[in-house]
Amino acid sequence: MWEDYVKKYEAITVKSKELYKRALKVIPGGVSHNIRFFPPYPFYTVKARGSKIWDVDGNVYTDYWMGHMALILGHSPEPVVRCIREHIENGFHFGTVNPYALELAEAIQRNLPSAEMVRLGCSGTEATMYAVRLARAYTGKRIVVKAEGGWHGGNPILHKAVSAPYDKPDSLGILEDEQRFTRTMPVNDVEGSGLILRECRNDLACVIVEPVVGSGCIPLDRDYLLFLREQCDRYNAVLIFDEVITGFRLGISSAQGFYRVKPDITTLGKVIGGGFPIGAIAGCSEILKLADLTSGRKWEKCWIGGGTFSCNPMSSIAGLATIEFLEENANQVYSKINKLGDEARRGIDKALNGLKGLNAKTTGVGSLLLTHFLKEEGDIKSPRDRLKTDLEIQRNFYIALITHGVFFLPGHAGAISYTHTEEDIRRLIEAVEKIAEGI
Amino acid sequence: MWEDYVKKYEAITVKSKELYKRALKVIPGGVSHNIRFFPPYPFYTVKARGSKIWDVDGNVYTDYWMGHMALILGHSPEPVVRCIREHIENGFHFGTVNPYALELAEAIQRNLPSAEMVRLGCSGTEATMYAVRLARAYTGKRIVVKAEGGWHGGNPILHKAVSAPYDKPDSLGILEDEQRFTRTMPVNDVEGSGLILRECRNDLACVIVEPVVGSGCIPLDRDYLLFLREQCDRYNAVLIFDEVITGFRLGISSAQGFYRVKPDITTLGKVIGGGFPIGAIAGCSEILKLADLTSGRKWEKCWIGGGTFSCNPMSSIAGLATIEFLEENANQVYSKINKLGDEARRGIDKALNGLKGLNAKTTGVGSLLLTHFLKEEGDIKSPRDRLKTDLEIQRNFYIALITHGVFFLPGHAGAISYTHTEEDIRRLIEAVEKIAEGI
Repeated sequence: MWEDYVKKYEAITVKSKELYKRALKVIPGGVSHNIRFFPPYPFYTVKARGSKIWDVDGNVYTDYWMGHMALILGHSPEPVVRCIREHIENGFHFGTVNPYALELAEAIQRNLPSAEMVRLGCSGTEATMYAVRLARAYTGKRIVVKAEGGWHGGNPILHKAVSAPYDKPDSLGILEDEQRFTRTMPVNDVEGSGLILRECRNDLACVIVEPVVGSGCIPLDRDYLLFLREQCDRYNAVLIFDEVITGFRLGISSAQGFYRVKPDITTLGKVIGGGFPIGAIAGCSEILKLADLTSGRKWEKCWIGGGTFSCNPMSSIAGLATIEFLEENANQVYSKINKLGDEARRGIDKALNGLKGLNAKTTGVGSLLLTHFLKEEGDIKSPRDRLKTDLEIQRNFYIALITHGVFFLPGHAGAISYTHTEEDIRRLIEAVEKIAEGI
Repeated sequence: MWEDYVKKYEAITVKSKELYKRALKVIPGGVSHNIRFFPPYPFYTVKARGSKIWDVDGNVYTDYWMGHMALILGHSPEPVVRCIREHIENGFHFGTVNPYALELAEAIQRNLPSAEMVRLGCSGTEATMYAVRLARAYTGKRIVVKAEGGWHGGNPILHKAVSAPYDKPDSLGILEDEQRFTRTMPVNDVEGSGLILRECRNDLACVIVEPVVGSGCIPLDRDYLLFLREQCDRYNAVLIFDEVITGFRLGISSAQGFYRVKPDITTLGKVIGGGFPIGAIAGCSEILKLADLTSGRKWEKCWIGGGTFSCNPMSSIAGLATIEFLEENANQVYSKINKLGDEARRGIDKALNGLKGLNAKTTGVGSLLLTHFLKEEGDIKSPRDRLKTDLEIQRNFYIALITHGVFFLPGHAGAISYTHTEEDIRRLIEAVEKIAEGI
């Protein structure tokens, strides 16, 4: 059954297969970003608008990957396109301070509860790397505790225990010394996390978590986040929320507003660039002011970047247009995408309910969702619980969806945008029903 | 005398001063990128076209900073603007494989002598971080040797001995363990570098250098680069050229073609994004294929990124349009900008020649240049030689130039673009002459 879907996928993506063959001659594995590969080969996108993307073979898909969940207003939304069009002839990369980047920083400051100050950068990977540096600089301590299965980009400090088996290195070429002070904890597990934190307490610089863990699309319990807040306060450690995914996604005040738990530092990316490359660090002034290098000696300050293209006018203008649109239409946007998210999660699980041997469960919160196939009874409360799921069926399920014109990046969380409609969700559920019939 | 220039600068940048005051309330030190600050405060750019930038007070400057030297075709060049305009409504961030990114990778492959394979990413900082990871994965060894004063972005492996004093940490919050296997060498010094490399030889994973050291704008001697090549071969280490600055800048085949010295891995950024955010790693297949994660076990492969916005169509299209323009007009572009560079270096030094107590010397090669003020006789052959220069006079000299409508980021290398004219260079030299008269 699943093989038929793969065959159908190959039949409709002939030109993509050719391009992938070409890609193998220049790019290792054919992809520059590892997760963008899925077997037998990924399709090649040539166009995207609103909730739809088109591949090189002319297939059109309703897109739930949405550029790694960055595109809360959909592809090429009018308010962003208009600003870019107006500005494009007036320089897209200054390399100097400019009012656009300043206004974006101010927009983050006024919406994010913990953002007393903000620094803009180029990527989420850099933002989390510098957030840990700031925490270590501020506390004078060394240990960072991260979630098992937590993903904070490829920087060596945090690229540990990302994928199972968690006790094996995630890559050749990362030295033990680079991660000597990186520890991992099981999320949504107060007792297990408490033990680790207690063990580290004398040298604990920070705890970093994604309020909704990207890998598995798993929301953390509010009580668990409150527990981390309390532990960080007790041990004089910095609490970092990696809100690269959830920032301006779970609400205008992000996950920290949604959960009413305030971190000391927040890392951002995705939505705040309005579809253009960006990263940012926000947080309390006392910590961030260590990064002011306009005076003082280098070894008494905390150097954080930076990057050639940081604060470029395109990312700033696009990000600002997006946040301003979200501010003006907050109720409308978030109530719509969160409602569609609820309907999708409920509808998918209902369609897959009672299938022989398949215990399907769609996790997520708000506009984020991912369907798992448990091999036994149970729930998905941490990335470790994914070990109890059938990852091959999950991947095949999403390839089957692609052949029905619905694109989730197989195995990865999906995101609903403001351009998605009730009709889109209805079709998604119908596609799941058709797949279920064949199982 | 210098104070008068600072006063004049303040008089013409009143609105910038206001914006900077606003920035201090949200951004530590008022800047997201440390080098973009210069005292008393930086001006705020609102528009840029060709070789010119405009600030918020309406001043227009001939720009030699050129977006951290990224903009080889000037600001908003027509071939790039046209492509972006055509594509902007069709998605600016897919988050999936696409033909535009593939074509850009192929364009790098066909022009860069050492680029058997290519991987695209988000920034130069990430590219150098992953290049070292690849070298460690490939050799199974740990030590990376970098240049004193060499800048490869803020990743903790390479953020060492960047600014003087070289024996002090460059930042709070970077752990000794993160840099336990990072060593530094004096560049353009065969004997000094040879000693270090010999000392490390049994655990030497790689040597990383910028063929033109960004800090001080100092070209490395061809003989020195050949020496590094020979040493890496002898010790089975990987030679990495960080060509983020020199890639497609010193010629269509980059510094490695210009110097006829072939590295094993090259890191790229700036020019290859056509003014949009990018980074890349290129090099020999045998090493890069370790990054193919489509099969195999994670701890036997080398994970390199990646990033949400990698391979986005804007950066890919802009980079491709830029490289294709350079390919079609290589002789014209490079002979023009290199000739203007020669004229500028010669003209500036002539204008500053024989001034009391100032031994001015403009370093650089091709279209890159920076003027130093030596406190004694001598030359600038390594970043360490900058300790013999007067950095305060250098900064003031460049602030004086700003008041004459000529913008170099004070203290940093400048770059000439294809849109600069003989007239621009004549005016630059005239401005230097006027400043010289007042000294």
